[in-house]
Amino acid sequence: MAIGTVKRIGILTGGGDCAGLNAVISSIVRAGGPMGYEFVGILKGWEGILDPPMLKPLDVKNVRGISHVGGTMLRTTNHGRFAAKIGEGGASRIPDEILHSVARNMQANDIDALIVIGGDGTLSGAHQLMELTGMKVVGVPKTIDNDLDGTDRSFGFSSAVEIVREELNRVHTTAASHDRVMFVETMGRHAGWIALYGGLAGGANAILLPEFPFEPADLADFLRNRVKEGKLSSVIVVAEGAHVGGALSTKKTKVDGEAQLGGAAERLMAAVENCAPNEFEMRTVVLGHTQRGGSPNAEDHILARAYGVAAIDAVHAGEFGCMVSFRHGKMTAVSIAQAVGKLKLVTPDDPVYSAAKKIGLYMGGKG
Amino acid sequence: MAIGTVKRIGILTGGGDCAGLNAVISSIVRAGGPMGYEFVGILKGWEGILDPPMLKPLDVKNVRGISHVGGTMLRTTNHGRFAAKIGEGGASRIPDEILHSVARNMQANDIDALIVIGGDGTLSGAHQLMELTGMKVVGVPKTIDNDLDGTDRSFGFSSAVEIVREELNRVHTTAASHDRVMFVETMGRHAGWIALYGGLAGGANAILLPEFPFEPADLADFLRNRVKEGKLSSVIVVAEGAHVGGALSTKKTKVDGEAQLGGAAERLMAAVENCAPNEFEMRTVVLGHTQRGGSPNAEDHILARAYGVAAIDAVHAGEFGCMVSFRHGKMTAVSIAQAVGKLKLVTPDDPVYSAAKKIGLYMGGKG
Amino acid sequence: MAIGTVKRIGILTGGGDCAGLNAVISSIVRAGGPMGYEFVGILKGWEGILDPPMLKPLDVKNVRGISHVGGTMLRTTNHGRFAAKIGEGGASRIPDEILHSVARNMQANDIDALIVIGGDGTLSGAHQLMELTGMKVVGVPKTIDNDLDGTDRSFGFSSAVEIVREELNRVHTTAASHDRVMFVETMGRHAGWIALYGGLAGGANAILLPEFPFEPADLADFLRNRVKEGKLSSVIVVAEGAHVGGALSTKKTKVDGEAQLGGAAERLMAAVENCAPNEFEMRTVVLGHTQRGGSPNAEDHILARAYGVAAIDAVHAGEFGCMVSFRHGKMTAVSIAQAVGKLKLVTPDDPVYSAAKKIGLYMGGKG
Amino acid sequence: MAIGTVKRIGILTGGGDCAGLNAVISSIVRAGGPMGYEFVGILKGWEGILDPPMLKPLDVKNVRGISHVGGTMLRTTNHGRFAAKIGEGGASRIPDEILHSVARNMQANDIDALIVIGGDGTLSGAHQLMELTGMKVVGVPKTIDNDLDGTDRSFGFSSAVEIVREELNRVHTTAASHDRVMFVETMGRHAGWIALYGGLAGGANAILLPEFPFEPADLADFLRNRVKEGKLSSVIVVAEGAHVGGALSTKKTKVDGEAQLGGAAERLMAAVENCAPNEFEMRTVVLGHTQRGGSPNAEDHILARAYGVAAIDAVHAGEFGCMVSFRHGKMTAVSIAQAVGKLKLVTPDDPVYSAAKKIGLYMGGKG
Repeated sequence: MAIGTVKRIGILTGGGDCAGLNAVISSIVRAGGPMGYEFVGILKGWEGILDPPMLKPLDVKNVRGISHVGGTMLRTTNHGRFAAKIGEGGASRIPDEILHSVARNMQANDIDALIVIGGDGTLSGAHQLMELTGMKVVGVPKTIDNDLDGTDRSFGFSSAVEIVREELNRVHTTAASHDRVMFVETMGRHAGWIALYGGLAGGANAILLPEFPFEPADLADFLRNRVKEGKLSSVIVVAEGAHVGGALSTKKTKVDGEAQLGGAAERLMAAVENCAPNEFEMRTVVLGHTQRGGSPNAEDHILARAYGVAAIDAVHAGEFGCMVSFRHGKMTAVSIAQAVGKLKLVTPDDPVYSAAKKIGLYMGGKG
Repeated sequence: MAIGTVKRIGILTGGGDCAGLNAVISSIVRAGGPMGYEFVGILKGWEGILDPPMLKPLDVKNVRGISHVGGTMLRTTNHGRFAAKIGEGGASRIPDEILHSVARNMQANDIDALIVIGGDGTLSGAHQLMELTGMKVVGVPKTIDNDLDGTDRSFGFSSAVEIVREELNRVHTTAASHDRVMFVETMGRHAGWIALYGGLAGGANAILLPEFPFEPADLADFLRNRVKEGKLSSVIVVAEGAHVGGALSTKKTKVDGEAQLGGAAERLMAAVENCAPNEFEMRTVVLGHTQRGGSPNAEDHILARAYGVAAIDAVHAGEFGCMVSFRHGKMTAVSIAQAVGKLKLVTPDDPVYSAAKKIGLYMGGKG
Repeated sequence: MAIGTVKRIGILTGGGDCAGLNAVISSIVRAGGPMGYEFVGILKGWEGILDPPMLKPLDVKNVRGISHVGGTMLRTTNHGRFAAKIGEGGASRIPDEILHSVARNMQANDIDALIVIGGDGTLSGAHQLMELTGMKVVGVPKTIDNDLDGTDRSFGFSSAVEIVREELNRVHTTAASHDRVMFVETMGRHAGWIALYGGLAGGANAILLPEFPFEPADLADFLRNRVKEGKLSSVIVVAEGAHVGGALSTKKTKVDGEAQLGGAAERLMAAVENCAPNEFEMRTVVLGHTQRGGSPNAEDHILARAYGVAAIDAVHAGEFGCMVSFRHGKMTAVSIAQAVGKLKLVTPDDPVYSAAKKIGLYMGGKG
Repeated sequence: MAIGTVKRIGILTGGGDCAGLNAVISSIVRAGGPMGYEFVGILKGWEGILDPPMLKPLDVKNVRGISHVGGTMLRTTNHGRFAAKIGEGGASRIPDEILHSVARNMQANDIDALIVIGGDGTLSGAHQLMELTGMKVVGVPKTIDNDLDGTDRSFGFSSAVEIVREELNRVHTTAASHDRVMFVETMGRHAGWIALYGGLAGGANAILLPEFPFEPADLADFLRNRVKEGKLSSVIVVAEGAHVGGALSTKKTKVDGEAQLGGAAERLMAAVENCAPNEFEMRTVVLGHTQRGGSPNAEDHILARAYGVAAIDAVHAGEFGCMVSFRHGKMTAVSIAQAVGKLKLVTPDDPVYSAAKKIGLYMGGKG
């Protein structure tokens, strides 16, 4: 198969939405036009390049004014035929006929290369596509949870953290008015970055992360001590994947994109109630989909702009099979194969985790 | 009973918290000081003036900086011994010994009059107290739902509506990215003002209110027509008390303050799913406690300031047994007896409801 | 003059922009379509219906998504050939040939009636047009200053007030860090509503309005007393038209729309410096254009929606020569002739002004 | 000189305020208490440890609730006796008697070490103090401009950028409504990071930085081309230190802390007017002090928390003479002597600058 010159580039967004996707798309098109490229948007993630294709030509006119709009103008899906599941042994294998179908539709529609904006499932698929069919791909990391090991920071994360901060500010005053303990559930099934950052910025008193199992009796003691010190209310941030102590859950199956929401706050509140019956007036709040939506904040807007430009630069440099990565303040390109499938988890020596612990928050884990 | 000169005034906040309570308290103290009054805060609603009393002297120093803080510095409760339940036949009767206990503690602590900031349950109690014991009371209406008939506008409502608007802006972009129908649940068990105002301001496509039962088949048709017009996503605002058509629920029991949250969005989504199986990808978001919390917006801050000053003016004018009321741009005083127990509901000819309907939102009800 | 059936309606926005204009336009079109009307947008205020006309057909498709966008999609101007100046003796007279030119272009473009969204200058012009030529007009009041006597509340005001509140919150912390006196200038050349509401909501310590001339020596004493009480910083809100005491300025000339910004804060700061040399470290902030821009807040969004629907209802009811007005919670129609040219000023007995004074702010004026 | 055990630590904040200072202070105290340290706040920067000292004991009680409040609870000054001016040849020399006076007051008040939170002027002073007197100091970098070479990111910057983004969103809609060119002035006398990041995030069409002199004729051409493409309005962000082309200004004198605000937008607007008379309707907005104030956003809150903990850790590790620094996602300590006096400027290959240029913004400079 011939690897000729790239002229027309397809752009797709896969998995769950987050703030900044449109700024990436807009930047690719605005920077790529003067470089001589044409663009076509592929709708609904990989679905749009399977049968029948759903395509939308993109130029500077139809990306105007979208960069500050949340979500993705190309739309996306979590339930497609292409989704590579990430499990214990890495990404699952997408059937060859699906991959060939993508390649066939790319050729039929004169799409010379793909810029794929997605999480590790979406990017794994892109890698398999290139390996099997030789189609040219460049990846852009998208994970609102900021848990992709191949990059320091992904767009959408800062906006989600900011939303958590704002919601916690609201929850604090109602908690204090009623002497309540509030369990506020955030996203974060495997990695607790949103809960950690949002919780610390929002003045949480305890933060429960998937990485640090907690002991209900310890948390109850912590709350009891607060009451003794006159702090009659508490706000506890609970990542979706937080859990009571013991071995870490061995279930690591993750569907690319939106995790199923809900449940953790109720579950952990019940665990505390169980070891301190009727001692605290407790309530839950599940932030849910509001964390994904809305305009990117300034940090994410800028990061998304830089990612988009880096992606078209990578195409221009012929760095196919790579994912652009933000590392130590610079944009670089790393191999997709190496970048995906490895989660970046919160560790005890993380400066933010340890700061939270040292200023006195209950952070689960030992000691 | 002796109606002597008022020197020392107790202030209490009852029922659920909302934005602006602290601005009311601060205004009373700041305006009342130069008029010669002293103030004492009564903690945890009526509980703080029952046995044993929980009191906190208030002066300009300790109300400094609180007016923009959400909730109530005096704390409150929904579960007190004093709460008058509002039901079919009006407010329930508080036992005489409880009322006498309040009067006794007022006298024992040199509290000559009470300013009671609360909803219809709290204010009914204040009225019963004055009738039975002659204690002097002035009421300030507090209802985040803005459903108290005795006043045009209560503080906390505008802030809650603004929060709903912001959350809907977030929900729209994630709904649009995934071609989803989102059911967003707001407060409003009996009156749908928060859902109506927040939904209209936040660009909802349908708003389901307690006052206008909806037909799931009609809503499914509405959503179907949107899809035909290329509008692949929809956002539906659901007040807590919204329900499927037929006679209005006859259950009117309302505990003063916070209603039990949750359930309506799930319930109504299921009703739609039932008459359009697998037709729409649907999700729910429950805004919950975040609607109560946080700083008052400018409208509520100003309104709360004006209410606080009106309350101390009413005490000064000897208008006991009255509730201050905002009516047609002015502060007036109305009899508590007349003001409470009558809900202000959304009606078909309300200018906001009818505007929403005329611009094409699905608003339940007939036609 | 023939008053035939109205089929095609022109919409124009005149004078300075404010938040909510697009929501009015969108509501007219969305509500009017099902009633059988067609719409055409007139660009750049009256300029767009003079020679040569600048028109843009409007339907539900091209008003989609605009209601939460600030400003006006029809664009506007402050410098047109049509602007009626409002002065001592009321609005100035627009030359007959200009008015006839409008009528001629309406007829040439099959525009049967105009909905004119503007301040008293723009609306006076509409009135003169109807008087001279018989063209049908309906007015919608637009004044970010909320100073039009013919209506209780105009859209854009609440958003501007909210912005002032947010900016003051920022200014407070920097003032407090540096022991400074900050003069923050807001809009409000003739009426001080934005300064009054924004200042009270934002915790200003003094508010200087056009309606209440201040004495620099009094303000210096006020600031001095604050320092004695340990309040080392102060925030003073200054409406554009605020001025040092003596008789109220007799200059009432007002160009419709944007007043010239700037100057008042510098001027009044100098007056204080003059009578308290080197006593306070003082700085100015001029909020300027940021007060006009951005999305309408929930209150303005709702109000604008209701105004738009009321305007098309007024056309449908044949209430030409009227301006729709929000009064006591309802939408009504009042004669344009009576509605314009009379400013609604802040008075000493206004509940917000008197609340601000009673809680201890320096508010200028006597006593 | 005796280097004994550190028990009691003074904390001071110097120079201009920014968001996050209180979170640093709070973190030091909350983390340091359990490590056995006592704390005393030094008021008004270095002034508070000169004669007469102004001190305030700090413990967990009096830092409660301050971390989300903007500015500094310890207050600060730009005009002290201690301020080291940073000029061409590095920091100016503080007189020995001033340095000895600090040392004497530290000893007299049992202050064993200082944590100094400030910009390069403040930190240079700390370094001179340690060199001359042996007093123990640890520095925390504070620069809202993010222009200190010794650290990747300083707190306050992200919040300022977010404010610029919000203000630009407001300015865009009023610019578009009136077909105007708006010049919006931000902080940044020597380094343009705030203008660059805020401008890109806020959708500016041109960004003028101190590092890249611009040609008025080029900018006028750029604006002219926009008009030809139907883009009738433009928003131009102007850093305080931006200037018309030619050699970079040789004036590098910078007083630690707040630069004098204003002037650049007016000046550069005049330069454009000069080469394109009456061609564009132009206005200026000066954001001024609003960029400094208000609550830290989530990014700054977290960073400030981490800095505070790192500072007390550095004291505990005996790393005196060092400044804590955030580098590549970790907290480290660098020598104050090496860290200060070197500005981090925007360079052509900065990923954000080049992204802005590649997507088509006018960015000054050559080509």
